[in-house]
Amino acid sequence: MHAVCSETLDMAIPCPHLLYSETPPVLATLAPPPEVKPPAAPTQDDLKRIAAHRAVELLESGMVVGLGTGSTAAHALDRIGELLRRGVLRDIVGIPTSKKTEAHAAAVGIPLSDLHAHPIVDLSIDGADEVDPSLNLVKGRGGSLLREKMIEGASRRFVVIVDESKMVPRLGGSGLAVPVEVIPFCWGHTLGRLRILFDGEPGFDAKLRRAASAAGDGGKDEPFVTDNGNYIVNLFFDNGIHGDLDLISDKILRITGVVEHGMFLGMASSVIIAGEDGVTVLEKQ
Amino acid sequence: MHAVCSETLDMAIPCPHLLYSETPPVLATLAPPPEVKPPAAPTQDDLKRIAAHRAVELLESGMVVGLGTGSTAAHALDRIGELLRRGVLRDIVGIPTSKKTEAHAAAVGIPLSDLHAHPIVDLSIDGADEVDPSLNLVKGRGGSLLREKMIEGASRRFVVIVDESKMVPRLGGSGLAVPVEVIPFCWGHTLGRLRILFDGEPGFDAKLRRAASAAGDGGKDEPFVTDNGNYIVNLFFDNGIHGDLDLISDKILRITGVVEHGMFLGMASSVIIAGEDGVTVLEKQ
Repeated sequence: MHAVCSETLDMAIPCPHLLYSETPPVLATLAPPPEVKPPAAPTQDDLKRIAAHRAVELLESGMVVGLGTGSTAAHALDRIGELLRRGVLRDIVGIPTSKKTEAHAAAVGIPLSDLHAHPIVDLSIDGADEVDPSLNLVKGRGGSLLREKMIEGASRRFVVIVDESKMVPRLGGSGLAVPVEVIPFCWGHTLGRLRILFDGEPGFDAKLRRAASAAGDGGKDEPFVTDNGNYIVNLFFDNGIHGDLDLISDKILRITGVVEHGMFLGMASSVIIAGEDGVTVLEKQ
Repeated sequence: MHAVCSETLDMAIPCPHLLYSETPPVLATLAPPPEVKPPAAPTQDDLKRIAAHRAVELLESGMVVGLGTGSTAAHALDRIGELLRRGVLRDIVGIPTSKKTEAHAAAVGIPLSDLHAHPIVDLSIDGADEVDPSLNLVKGRGGSLLREKMIEGASRRFVVIVDESKMVPRLGGSGLAVPVEVIPFCWGHTLGRLRILFDGEPGFDAKLRRAASAAGDGGKDEPFVTDNGNYIVNLFFDNGIHGDLDLISDKILRITGVVEHGMFLGMASSVIIAGEDGVTVLEKQ
């Protein structure tokens, strides 16, 4: 379902390794060579930034761009803002996927709009929590899965930016949460129906996502509330989700009380993966 | 998929026609016979009451009962309250399907609970906007489709009460709305995707449901808001919904921004239909 597009020399972009190389330039002197330090290993945040900057290279002046949510997408926002300030990009309109992204984008000077005014998005750039070999995603650990899915589903091209730790053999395989947005009314009943759906799946568990008490009073944590005023049920799998993902998606959506889930199936146009050995781009075929 | 269970003499219940017959008893006198008035035709509200009272006969002391929403279900609430006051029923627990029903049930003295405390409902009684020959329903013109579907879906038995005007050859066939509950965020985009889904369906239209301005100032009507804080998109069909309803249901639910729709497929255990010629009960096979 995809092809590996490795870094090639004919791509007129700087090698991302240079961004974090500490190797000094060669000096044309007779002085003894300076001590050469080995290149520092990039941090996970470095890798996120590298993937984000690569995606922003796809952006052209005049485009409508879907702005993702999360720590990786935040690097894309900063980069777009910088390129706008430098005049490299002009006439960009951003469609934010969360209130948090809206505030961040406004702060870095990206003009904003919404799907009412711009029903077609040229390019969306967003991170993901998991990417499987068919470019299916788990998203929404940041709690914005519904708005992300709506805006990225309305995009001509959806580019996913991740560090290599997000690649999994199958969705749910990281052992971290697969989120499901649910209506608060009788959420416990909806959670129970999700448990029944995955009954027999090894190590399956479902839990309401909770947020630290806003009062900071050490009281019992309140349910996490999405931008849409809903709750999140986190699904956990020992060894990923087995079976036909499209069918499983339908079964989840049929449960009354479920609004949306965090599996993004067949939506990604390409995935930019930054790793210690460089950048890899997977394209949907 | 269903059998017609006509009124039979061995059912120890009064003929519903007696409830609105004005024929006087025969008097054993020699006086000239009084003028016999023809029976007054029952109003639609009479028929709703007749169907509702018939359903309440299925209720037994100690049961957990799902309490529907709307003008027909309201007659069931009144009847349950009356039977509780008279001591004919005891230890009933009601699970209301809307805030309006909750208030009404409390006013007539029905003890209330929710699906958290009572995850299994013995019997739900509710009206419907449309009933097709396979006992599929359209519900939710009252705006409570999500809570109704959740509670009625958790019921051992779901009895639908209608007057005969609600019977249609196919869902959507009344020309009135098939409601879809949607997230307010970018509702126009969601409405647009619903339009695309039914593109080519003769006379199809989709409109946001609006409520009269609360201020009564003649200003532009605001969107109708559900008990869950969402909006309703009304779907209209010239001649009903054609095609595989289960597949159409899945396609609606796959649209990001859709929470639930008002088609209740395969959920009704039986439908009690009150008409001018008496009561008919259709049972799911």
